[in-house]
Amino acid sequence: MLRFLSRARSITSSVTQGIRPYSSTPSKAHLVLPGKEEDYPRGFRLSGIHCGVKKTTDADLALLVSDTTDTSAAAVFTQNVFAAAPVLQCKEVLRAHNGQGVRGVVVNSGCANAVTGTQGERDALEMAQTVDRTMAWDPSAPSPHSLVMSTGVIGQNLPIDRILQGIPKAASALATGHDAWLAAAEAIRTTDTFPKLRARTFTLPSGRSYRLAGMAKGAGMIHPNMATMLGIMATDAAISPAALQKALSHACDRSFNAITVDGDTSTNDTLSILANGAAWTNKDASDPLDVSQADFPVFQEQLTDFSAELAQLIVRDGEGATKFVTVHVTNASTFKEAKKAAMAIATSSLVKTALYGQDANWGRILSSIGASGVPMTPKAVSVSFLPANANSSNQGELRLLDQGEPAQVDEEKASAMLAQEDIVIRVSLGAGKEDARVWTCDLSHGYISINADYRS
Amino acid sequence: MLRFLSRARSITSSVTQGIRPYSSTPSKAHLVLPGKEEDYPRGFRLSGIHCGVKKTTDADLALLVSDTTDTSAAAVFTQNVFAAAPVLQCKEVLRAHNGQGVRGVVVNSGCANAVTGTQGERDALEMAQTVDRTMAWDPSAPSPHSLVMSTGVIGQNLPIDRILQGIPKAASALATGHDAWLAAAEAIRTTDTFPKLRARTFTLPSGRSYRLAGMAKGAGMIHPNMATMLGIMATDAAISPAALQKALSHACDRSFNAITVDGDTSTNDTLSILANGAAWTNKDASDPLDVSQADFPVFQEQLTDFSAELAQLIVRDGEGATKFVTVHVTNASTFKEAKKAAMAIATSSLVKTALYGQDANWGRILSSIGASGVPMTPKAVSVSFLPANANSSNQGELRLLDQGEPAQVDEEKASAMLAQEDIVIRVSLGAGKEDARVWTCDLSHGYISINADYRS
Repeated sequence: MLRFLSRARSITSSVTQGIRPYSSTPSKAHLVLPGKEEDYPRGFRLSGIHCGVKKTTDADLALLVSDTTDTSAAAVFTQNVFAAAPVLQCKEVLRAHNGQGVRGVVVNSGCANAVTGTQGERDALEMAQTVDRTMAWDPSAPSPHSLVMSTGVIGQNLPIDRILQGIPKAASALATGHDAWLAAAEAIRTTDTFPKLRARTFTLPSGRSYRLAGMAKGAGMIHPNMATMLGIMATDAAISPAALQKALSHACDRSFNAITVDGDTSTNDTLSILANGAAWTNKDASDPLDVSQADFPVFQEQLTDFSAELAQLIVRDGEGATKFVTVHVTNASTFKEAKKAAMAIATSSLVKTALYGQDANWGRILSSIGASGVPMTPKAVSVSFLPANANSSNQGELRLLDQGEPAQVDEEKASAMLAQEDIVIRVSLGAGKEDARVWTCDLSHGYISINADYRS
Repeated sequence: MLRFLSRARSITSSVTQGIRPYSSTPSKAHLVLPGKEEDYPRGFRLSGIHCGVKKTTDADLALLVSDTTDTSAAAVFTQNVFAAAPVLQCKEVLRAHNGQGVRGVVVNSGCANAVTGTQGERDALEMAQTVDRTMAWDPSAPSPHSLVMSTGVIGQNLPIDRILQGIPKAASALATGHDAWLAAAEAIRTTDTFPKLRARTFTLPSGRSYRLAGMAKGAGMIHPNMATMLGIMATDAAISPAALQKALSHACDRSFNAITVDGDTSTNDTLSILANGAAWTNKDASDPLDVSQADFPVFQEQLTDFSAELAQLIVRDGEGATKFVTVHVTNASTFKEAKKAAMAIATSSLVKTALYGQDANWGRILSSIGASGVPMTPKAVSVSFLPANANSSNQGELRLLDQGEPAQVDEEKASAMLAQEDIVIRVSLGAGKEDARVWTCDLSHGYISINADYRS
């Protein structure tokens, strides 16, 4: 997984659906959408408390538990060789349970428990074991029932005693609904400028309705540091672990693995989902959704769309970002090639600085895909800018390159379009029928200041 | 090939061997080393004139010719799919002649002749043909005898008449020695802050001495634009085209393809060398150096070292650069893996901003190699900073990570080291015996300003 980052900055992000982010107001009151209680999945309780990992009084320990014994779990982890102890611990828990009966997630912020050797591995295990003991979950199980995540400073051991003492406190604060989710979303923040939380209800072809909620963070920059992307989702759907993992991997490729702020991948990145089947009757739970059912592709599409919504909040909180950019590569031979080309554009420093400078510099876009390693025919490639609301139509399209030939660019129209905060870059490879979208931000002075100057 | 860029900026680069670059003086008088006439290869003549591609009166047309008919030529080109017309033309010339008898290089700056369709291809061919006619070179040859390079604005056709009229003027200005090389090096600049020119004499095991000179540019940023890296070298050694190509490819991997400013690859990047055998007697020319001779590996090493010196000037002129950073990956299984890991560090925006901020942030170094795709054992990896003059020793080494364990970092020593303009990052993968060096610069506010703000 790619890593994404974020950090407190002078500009305040305002994220509400359909309204431009990055308002200039310092108030954070409107950064979080008001949650509708009916959208939060049943049978899950959450809390967020302060246990003392952070030096401030900010919340730094989040707990999520499912009330259902046979909750399914799935996760996607960082591909970084230096995967942190909690990542290794999560993999072991999922392996030991084969994804079934994993019903807790415990997260601390303020310390990443990364590059911490065998002590770090013991600490991650003990966090999971303490959740089990506190919740009085089956002690005879081969492995604890909780996923463990940590984010914050690397190369330092956890203040493990404070965390272990905090877990019972977190357990006694567990509650349902929006406020509980928000408390947990607050507790996983490091230097995010706002908590990232969304919830929705969806209906499958069979007529079954489920709820889906999720929180994300992305991510902290404290010396010595690495940013971490965490995503924690929960649904009250009944679904087999295998189907859940398949849907999550599909969703992740098109959401958390389709965003980039600066192209780096942290040691701790984790995206997880628990599904507890609490939405319906026991009958429903005994007939969990599997990949062969007609409901599955729709569930997968819902999860993908929801994941993308959550992931995009990380880009909106991107360090120094002044633009939210959708890169849409169309007419590729495969999804993989479309995404590779899109990522080449989305990670190009030259493209990102041009966007910051509101410069319709199609040469840089062309150069970045030309060097991406994706096979293409130069004379089949077209490049356009589109306004954000024309994501799936051609309305307002500004052609820059037309099948390999430079277009006569209406500079006035280009300037007006690039002055917007939301921009769509569309590239047609003219090779096939597959497409991919990735989301990125611009590269600004703010990014440099956040990542270089903050010690001065 | 990667592309590297450079552009006029307020800070002035001072490059003299052993002296720190980036002096604060605005004078450019000392940016170019005084050339020793005896180091310039025999049998080559050069010129640089103004023909009118640039709107200013700056030189914009360079010509290099060899006086020897059977000059060998070799080149390495951009891997970008959108290779420009002059790149395609060069490939055709080298193919048609099989590298033998290619004796001219004509270069214009101010317009890249990239993404210019069939008109662009005709223009590039005509430039080469006009050099042939002007120099009265064999008209019966299957292809012109000159390489063609262009750099500057993309997406615009060349003002071809001015260039064709300029070629006879450039031919009549041809001369030997330092001033002629400098005039050519000036003419290939776009927005480089100084002309990049070096020359040296070297002796092979057989006792033969040769001269080697080269110039480089890297590179211009004008809207709409792409930067271009050009390198043009000449030696009076007698060497077969096959041996020359082999040595050049080896050298390029360890020089021009081992530098990065921002990781992008332009459409026009070209590195070329001509070898005319004019150094010695006819006896020598009739016995050209080939890969089987004991002289070859030494020639190759000389060319590699010289190419690295020339390539490093591009990094020294990197946009907004305040640091010159050597990334040295050691104890890798293969050179390819060592270089891949080194490039992952050298292109990481997080590493580069940390260097700009003088932050001993080994977490970012670790994260970047961990995500590089190079197989490694976390507990075998060590990371150090070294002062620039300790490139091949351990003197003054500052250990940051020792076989996967964080070291106790002497912050005072770290600050002093990172305050230097030249820094070495050494990473041992603990896996084998191969190593690779790449050179990069930091990522600063200057870079953002140059690439984003210059329209305002």
